Amino acid sequence: MLRSIALLAFLCHVVACSSSAAQAPFVNALVPQPRELQVSADPGLSFSQTTSVFLQAAASGPLSAATSRFIVRLQSTTGIELTTPLVPNHDAASIVIHVADASASQPTLGMDESYSLNVDSHRATIEANTIFGAYHGMETLLQLLQSNGSGWFLPPVHIVDTPRFPWRGLLLDPSRHFLPVPVLLRTLDAMAAVKMNVLHLHLTDFQGFRIESRVFPRLTADGSDGEFYTQDQMRAVVAYAAARGIRIVPEFDMPGHSMSWMAGYPQLASAPGPFHAEHSYHIFAAAMDPTRESTYEFLDRFFEEMTHIFPDQYVHIGGDETNGVAWKSNPRIAAYMKAHGYAKPSELQAEFSRRVQRILNRHGRKMIGWDEALSPDLLSGFVVQNRRGATSFAAAATQNRQTIYSQPYYLDHHSSSAEIYAAKLPTGQGMLGGEACMWGEEVNAQTIDSRVWPRTIAFAERMWSPPQVSDVEDMYRRLRIESLRLDAMGLEHLSNPQRLLRHISRSLSSPELETLAATLQPEDFIVRLQRQKPTRDTPLVGLVDAVVFDPPFEHEFDRTVDAFLHSTDDAAINQAASTLRRDFQSWVNTGPALDQLTESNPELKKVTERRHELIALGHLGLEELEARQHHEHLSAPDVAMAEQLLQRAATPDEGYVDFIVLQPLEQLLRAVR
Amino acid sequence: MLRSIALLAFLCHVVACSSSAAQAPFVNALVPQPRELQVSADPGLSFSQTTSVFLQAAASGPLSAATSRFIVRLQSTTGIELTTPLVPNHDAASIVIHVADASASQPTLGMDESYSLNVDSHRATIEANTIFGAYHGMETLLQLLQSNGSGWFLPPVHIVDTPRFPWRGLLLDPSRHFLPVPVLLRTLDAMAAVKMNVLHLHLTDFQGFRIESRVFPRLTADGSDGEFYTQDQMRAVVAYAAARGIRIVPEFDMPGHSMSWMAGYPQLASAPGPFHAEHSYHIFAAAMDPTRESTYEFLDRFFEEMTHIFPDQYVHIGGDETNGVAWKSNPRIAAYMKAHGYAKPSELQAEFSRRVQRILNRHGRKMIGWDEALSPDLLSGFVVQNRRGATSFAAAATQNRQTIYSQPYYLDHHSSSAEIYAAKLPTGQGMLGGEACMWGEEVNAQTIDSRVWPRTIAFAERMWSPPQVSDVEDMYRRLRIESLRLDAMGLEHLSNPQRLLRHISRSLSSPELETLAATLQPEDFIVRLQRQKPTRDTPLVGLVDAVVFDPPFEHEFDRTVDAFLHSTDDAAINQAASTLRRDFQSWVNTGPALDQLTESNPELKKVTERRHELIALGHLGLEELEARQHHEHLSAPDVAMAEQLLQRAATPDEGYVDFIVLQPLEQLLRAVR
Repeated sequence: MLRSIALLAFLCHVVACSSSAAQAPFVNALVPQPRELQVSADPGLSFSQTTSVFLQAAASGPLSAATSRFIVRLQSTTGIELTTPLVPNHDAASIVIHVADASASQPTLGMDESYSLNVDSHRATIEANTIFGAYHGMETLLQLLQSNGSGWFLPPVHIVDTPRFPWRGLLLDPSRHFLPVPVLLRTLDAMAAVKMNVLHLHLTDFQGFRIESRVFPRLTADGSDGEFYTQDQMRAVVAYAAARGIRIVPEFDMPGHSMSWMAGYPQLASAPGPFHAEHSYHIFAAAMDPTRESTYEFLDRFFEEMTHIFPDQYVHIGGDETNGVAWKSNPRIAAYMKAHGYAKPSELQAEFSRRVQRILNRHGRKMIGWDEALSPDLLSGFVVQNRRGATSFAAAATQNRQTIYSQPYYLDHHSSSAEIYAAKLPTGQGMLGGEACMWGEEVNAQTIDSRVWPRTIAFAERMWSPPQVSDVEDMYRRLRIESLRLDAMGLEHLSNPQRLLRHISRSLSSPELETLAATLQPEDFIVRLQRQKPTRDTPLVGLVDAVVFDPPFEHEFDRTVDAFLHSTDDAAINQAASTLRRDFQSWVNTGPALDQLTESNPELKKVTERRHELIALGHLGLEELEARQHHEHLSAPDVAMAEQLLQRAATPDEGYVDFIVLQPLEQLLRAVR
Repeated sequence: MLRSIALLAFLCHVVACSSSAAQAPFVNALVPQPRELQVSADPGLSFSQTTSVFLQAAASGPLSAATSRFIVRLQSTTGIELTTPLVPNHDAASIVIHVADASASQPTLGMDESYSLNVDSHRATIEANTIFGAYHGMETLLQLLQSNGSGWFLPPVHIVDTPRFPWRGLLLDPSRHFLPVPVLLRTLDAMAAVKMNVLHLHLTDFQGFRIESRVFPRLTADGSDGEFYTQDQMRAVVAYAAARGIRIVPEFDMPGHSMSWMAGYPQLASAPGPFHAEHSYHIFAAAMDPTRESTYEFLDRFFEEMTHIFPDQYVHIGGDETNGVAWKSNPRIAAYMKAHGYAKPSELQAEFSRRVQRILNRHGRKMIGWDEALSPDLLSGFVVQNRRGATSFAAAATQNRQTIYSQPYYLDHHSSSAEIYAAKLPTGQGMLGGEACMWGEEVNAQTIDSRVWPRTIAFAERMWSPPQVSDVEDMYRRLRIESLRLDAMGLEHLSNPQRLLRHISRSLSSPELETLAATLQPEDFIVRLQRQKPTRDTPLVGLVDAVVFDPPFEHEFDRTVDAFLHSTDDAAINQAASTLRRDFQSWVNTGPALDQLTESNPELKKVTERRHELIALGHLGLEELEARQHHEHLSAPDVAMAEQLLQRAATPDEGYVDFIVLQPLEQLLRAVR
């Protein structure tokens, strides 16, 4: 008798029975968590083809457009095409959006971003004072959508929400590697999804000047290698951002980090030049000349032009890492310093900053600068972007300056989402919020998403949600869900690493290479910078570019080892042991396939050490496991050997990749030594 | 004794020994295959950091830009950063590009696309008469790059190459689903990689008017739902294409398929309206009024404007599917037809086409139309695009018309790469080449790449290579390699299906869902259209949108079953049996995981039948396998049951997906019945 017969018989009885089971329990996937959330006993709102979406009064162009996009996303999430989405149907399920005053469409610092969201079995209602609050409400509603055996529904929640901080930003650096417009747009989509509201663009640096100036066309003609945003493009980006409640804050780094300006306009410089946009990543001495009136006249005209592209009230002037060498070695500037009694370059920089601030203020803009630009001589309204931590914050507070906090949020470093989430924030009046900073030396348009996301989700929650929301496990649970949502929205953070692994393995899939990659992360920014000495032209197509900081396996493995060693529940211990055994065995098993793959593969040759170490670590893990389960201890020579292996696996390799599994393996070793 | 000790000892002896082994044998991954290819005994050219690339004389702006892009791609492919790439270094390995006459930069029909490529141990030399030939030579060189234990090298080849047909096109249809500029750009990159040279854009149809007209701004204002290419954008696309040797041929479909024109300009129509861009996909009767002078005056001004955007000599006016209903039901037009002795609407259409052709000719353009536009009354220079096959071709040949052949190349149908490759081409003077056509009803910007690629690679080879190049197995081998190269270049044909599977499974990976997806393809265009009745707003996020036509598993499974049944080599039979057993078992094993995944997943519920059938098919396969290996036969009732299963699995399902494994299973069944 064929086994398939039974199955076929079964098939003949498959009935399209849409069970009308009770709603599944509410799964909280919201990130950031709202300020207040209550769940009622109501069955919630079934979402179906006939659900209608409508704006109650106070509609505006931007709000209507946002509602149309919202409808498309409701459809993409659920796969359900709404029949007549915008026709209010009071008999059917409805999503109602009510905005008290929809007149403001340009986001500003301190705008009212609050909203409430109520769901019962008839309707879901988003209420907000501004369209910005309504945008957030729509994002929350999309995160609420869930499905059970009967279909899609919105759980019966009552949410009242407002952000903890008004400045929740992300810095991108198109100067080092240009980021074409589509990268900015998809980043804005992702930021909006987690309620961030500032995209800070580091538009100029040694390596390139990335925004078109029509007043000074040689800025891009000579300083951009042809890669820059036209004014039309940037206006479109600003509009796209505003339509999602996000401000674009431009940064024009000065007086240092400004060599790309001098390529076309050497008269700005403190030294004769010639200059060009640099492809290497040194910190060059070249700095603007703060002693010439012509410098300020130039900047005055330049900033005037930029105000027509960037409507935001804030302009960032950088101000970091000006070492003063160019000033001291120019006799005219040295004489100026002496004449003004400036003992240190920082005093000359303070004069420069003060004058630039006056120019900006005259154009209706407030000035932001990094820590180094802070000076008591600046006028009020100056905002400090903090990259040096608590001491700098205190110094700013002494001067009554507001601060954007960035020190723990440098995404080119290998901080995990947990570390970003748990970073201690200074308290005080001046705290505006923070920015996650993605410097561009080691990322390009292809790899940047996988460096920024999903870690920035943890940052976004820290900036929005009350400080009491701090459960790391729950954050990771929700971050994983949101990461998949961003993927579906078109972010490349999951796709591109896989694409690179296909490129490296030259095959549709290589499970063994994926196993290796899952245990690795890139070297920390600064270590790679010093060892590899990459330039703007270094291809970013190696395993180091495919692996990510804080890969999913890191937290998972930590937890499993923790459960194995510390759980008091035998079942949990056995479960953990079985997971670990499977993992360790998969490391050991990578050998033959990766040996073969590496044979004619120069890229994989670079990680030969890591490959071999992974196999050895797998054996070590299996032995640690066995010893622990049999309540045995490793011999002293074996322990020494294991320690040597762990030490070796922690040293830098030719592929610029680090293991993320060493600490748990050390914990295991301590338990059986 | 720790097993890891041995490994650790081994690690300590890992030496970075760059073996100087002889070059690996040449692996021919070229697609399309060149006209002539010889491989010499020379060791070939080692590619390293010091390899230089330079243009020999006759440099031009476009050629220099192309060379710079070529260098970036050499670096991305190999991961090697060239130190001073553009400085000729006669001591080191060099890639030399020589173009006899680099003055022409705008591609035209019949341009000289030939090139030669010679590699010895000192240099690789590309020689071409035009920059278009040089572009092809660079693509060939990139496909030649390969690596062995010592690093990257170019094998010692002598290639002389020229295309079989001068028209090697792809039709995209941004009217049904708008395709933003980045989609066009990445498509052009892929086309250039396989030496295609025409991108045909179907810019207007019932569902939308997609190119900005400043003369008639209401065309997009009222007929595009806000989705269209600005003139600046389209000029950039045309320039991007030209820089890759690709012509952009615009299509403005008329007199039918033109409702989006009438939304803003109802005076063009044969009926009073009102009209709007349609969201459904019916073929509407609305057609332009060919009896009014004002229609031709409008078209005259419109085409005049378009010549400033589209430099190509050819303009496509569609001309398909005008059913004449709108004409016959308008008394004025009916009277006109009677007065002119037109018995059938096609006669009126012929007059219309003739007049439009005169307008186009006056603007220096030649006219293309689909089969239905063919008429003996047209002037010479008219080109037919064939969508009806050999009979239509013969009709055109009778009128001495040139033909672009498309009938076998409709990518919305489920033709496999093998079928596309093997399609019989008509012979005759008028054969210009062909176009693969990707109609837009059921694809959007996210899914389109996976419908177009990799199948279009097979088409590209058919259009370029000599007809003797026809080995299907070898085509598939090279197509798989090229598919990965296109993936690395940024095409989404591999990424997006995986992204959709993550969206559907809501997890980073679901091996069981991947197993199911590997056995499925979308329903053929027309079947899905009639059953699902999708509109422009139907979300394309289901399993039907994640699976692809001619998935890799299809050909692989066919071959394995074939080897199992027909090989004369016992080892090959056993190998095939073991592969099949693993495959069938993997189908059976999908049960529990997919049951669980489906529980609260409305999208997966749609493929419940296919899921259950796959399990039954797996059981059937295992039994067929067992019977065959034991030289047994299935009982009559078992055969009947199996046939019933295969039949059932071949009927349309709720998810709009078809199995691609049924034919081989039937073959197996025939062998054991």
